[in-house]
Amino acid sequence: MNELQRKDLKYIWHPCSQMKDYETFDPIVIKRGEGVFLEDMNGKRYLDAVSSWWVNLFGHSNKRINEALYKQANKLEHVMLANFSHEPAIELAEKIVNVTPDGLNKIFFGDNGSSAVEIALKLSFQYHQQIGKNKKTKFVKISDAYHGETLGALSVCDVELYNKVFNPLLLDVIKAQGPDCYRCPYGLCRENCRAECFEKMEKTIEKQHEEISAIIIEPMVQGAAGMKIYSPEYLKKLRKLCDEYEINLIADEVAVGFGRTGKMFACENAGISPDIMCLSKGLTAGYMPLALTLMTDKIYNAFYDDYSKLKAFLHSHSYSGNALGCSIAVETLNIFKDENVVENNIIKSNLLREKVGNILDELPHVGEYRQLGMIGAIELVKNKETKEGFDWKSRVGYNIYKIALKKGVLLRPLGNVIYFMPPYVIDNKEMDLMVNTARDSILEFFNL
Amino acid sequence: MNELQRKDLKYIWHPCSQMKDYETFDPIVIKRGEGVFLEDMNGKRYLDAVSSWWVNLFGHSNKRINEALYKQANKLEHVMLANFSHEPAIELAEKIVNVTPDGLNKIFFGDNGSSAVEIALKLSFQYHQQIGKNKKTKFVKISDAYHGETLGALSVCDVELYNKVFNPLLLDVIKAQGPDCYRCPYGLCRENCRAECFEKMEKTIEKQHEEISAIIIEPMVQGAAGMKIYSPEYLKKLRKLCDEYEINLIADEVAVGFGRTGKMFACENAGISPDIMCLSKGLTAGYMPLALTLMTDKIYNAFYDDYSKLKAFLHSHSYSGNALGCSIAVETLNIFKDENVVENNIIKSNLLREKVGNILDELPHVGEYRQLGMIGAIELVKNKETKEGFDWKSRVGYNIYKIALKKGVLLRPLGNVIYFMPPYVIDNKEMDLMVNTARDSILEFFNL
Repeated sequence: MNELQRKDLKYIWHPCSQMKDYETFDPIVIKRGEGVFLEDMNGKRYLDAVSSWWVNLFGHSNKRINEALYKQANKLEHVMLANFSHEPAIELAEKIVNVTPDGLNKIFFGDNGSSAVEIALKLSFQYHQQIGKNKKTKFVKISDAYHGETLGALSVCDVELYNKVFNPLLLDVIKAQGPDCYRCPYGLCRENCRAECFEKMEKTIEKQHEEISAIIIEPMVQGAAGMKIYSPEYLKKLRKLCDEYEINLIADEVAVGFGRTGKMFACENAGISPDIMCLSKGLTAGYMPLALTLMTDKIYNAFYDDYSKLKAFLHSHSYSGNALGCSIAVETLNIFKDENVVENNIIKSNLLREKVGNILDELPHVGEYRQLGMIGAIELVKNKETKEGFDWKSRVGYNIYKIALKKGVLLRPLGNVIYFMPPYVIDNKEMDLMVNTARDSILEFFNL
Repeated sequence: MNELQRKDLKYIWHPCSQMKDYETFDPIVIKRGEGVFLEDMNGKRYLDAVSSWWVNLFGHSNKRINEALYKQANKLEHVMLANFSHEPAIELAEKIVNVTPDGLNKIFFGDNGSSAVEIALKLSFQYHQQIGKNKKTKFVKISDAYHGETLGALSVCDVELYNKVFNPLLLDVIKAQGPDCYRCPYGLCRENCRAECFEKMEKTIEKQHEEISAIIIEPMVQGAAGMKIYSPEYLKKLRKLCDEYEINLIADEVAVGFGRTGKMFACENAGISPDIMCLSKGLTAGYMPLALTLMTDKIYNAFYDDYSKLKAFLHSHSYSGNALGCSIAVETLNIFKDENVVENNIIKSNLLREKVGNILDELPHVGEYRQLGMIGAIELVKNKETKEGFDWKSRVGYNIYKIALKKGVLLRPLGNVIYFMPPYVIDNKEMDLMVNTARDSILEFFNL
């Protein structure tokens, strides 16, 4: 361990980490980034196959974004957004409304995914209070959901690892059984699914709709659950159900937005528009925290009244609408347009599917390979017939991740799911390195 | 209204705003910032007397920080902080631990003040669970507290305007009566106060300490409550009480840290160290969202164990430890050192006291002028004898703010408290402009 690493462990409590693990796993101190690569203090390079927690789109230290950032810093770094505004916020707002699903006409700024979700929940709650539906005070989450870790956002999560200890602090949320396509309880497979499992949601809602304000969902892919991809039919049915019972549909596109699923936004896969949509992560192409919560005019209008009626939505963060973040987000959208990113991603995602397809036969313990757009996930299981997973204590994914790091690829797993979620700028050769290193690391772990 | 303003109102839902107010108050679109000034699209300049919601320290578009930011962007903009690290995070961590009160040895990264508070609450809760004090599940807030607006942070707020509609979503928190020095129920004044009011807190804690995990407080100044300044004696007593009953003391220094109160951190005014401390706002000198939660080794150690014990603190945000934010924060601390900011602020705060002192006699309805360091607040009241405030519906502060804006000074009030919280780079002439414009605007509002 060098001096920097010693200082790191002396002072920093790393997120999502048991710090004792660092006794046998020195922190990797990154000096610079370029394209899909991160380079440490010793000059060793790592291909960032998970886009640094799903945020990076156009490579590390992207020249075009760096220039846009610097230009903005030399004009205006920040101004409070109450009564004030600035060009990057206005330009971003216009561009975002134009590229997001129809009907999402207003934007509210937040700082990160959690705050975007908290804003969405608070908005929906207050909306129903103000239109006289006072009984609608509860939120519905689906099984295995992940929406962030501030207490409101954590309340609509269903990942026991994150929630359990904090349960006494969480909201009383209604849980509906969601889709689970790899282990479909109906014995169906992806090809012949009509989202039969939606009947569980229907039953829950039919029974409790009078007290339900909103249903929150990660469209198409449940990320933290292990990149669980499900049918767009589920979302179509959900949209219909929400309309029927006057429930707000909140689409959390924090992880799946911005071209990740093959469409600009994941909801487009199902051709639906939510009532409220949360964006962050790729919004700044992996540069810095910024979030947006979008909503319909119908919701906005329920808050629009004379000041003395006290109907305003009083939620703010100091850095709401930060000019640096907005300027980066504007440049991100410009790159999407100038470089036909969504179209090009289709070609790249086909390439990814092909390359992973070529290695799967060599690998043991592959329960399923699933892919949507630029997300590909290998679920490793103990028993391929019964689909029984490995014991969490054996930390199969974690150990494969450590092997892959030695080989120069960052493949931080979700439990025993090894996934690919690379920056969109990944090229053919880099994709080979990523996929082949995943293969070699899995084989090495199983001593094959 | 110009095209940009029209677009702004078409798309943007501004924070902390009743949007209907914008019918008679066009959004002010800022083109550039320089020092204490913001300049709009028409070239009109505004002195930013509230540091854009208390974040800016060294002026807008600060050249030195711009260069540090650009330099970092060209090296590394971001890498996930789990298992990875980078120089700016390590340098920031070391520097922060060295300047904060003794005993705060570990740092955890967040994105904004709300997340820093949520992290603090979750940490304290899990800490007590893991040391076998399972009954310690509740938090104590004091009257008029403000700690952010995600649901966990909002739960420990006591500002009815923000909380009321969301009450059904908030945690069951214990409220203790806090200090109220201007309207002291003991009939004391600041000069002869020994924090007699602390007896209310004592009674609350004596009765309920077995179920209390943490007490959270804004040290020295309750910001959103209207810059309510109170005695350091209160904090000394609170520190002692928390020790006695094994309760975590959480100091929320988001607004008051980084030299604002005349010391580097507000807790220094009382010579105390909290168990957990929250930082944001000035941490990046007003540039972008970044937050830190610091804590003692004692707390950190209660989470340090074998992975299989499941004692890790699982909280993360995608942009935790963002390299751009950290590089700005490092440069901010360098400026503090190189330019003797804390010492120089003492001279400037004396100047502010003198200048405001010179105008007070001319003004009607001044209940109190209170000041601590670079925070000065004029509380306007209907009746100076009874200290009865103006009806909130008359929006006295808001109307004075609008007048001041026309005159070129941004003095966004807190209710009917007009306050000065300028960037530290404000010079003598600029301070005159700020204070005199406040005077002229108040006089104009009262038709004097």
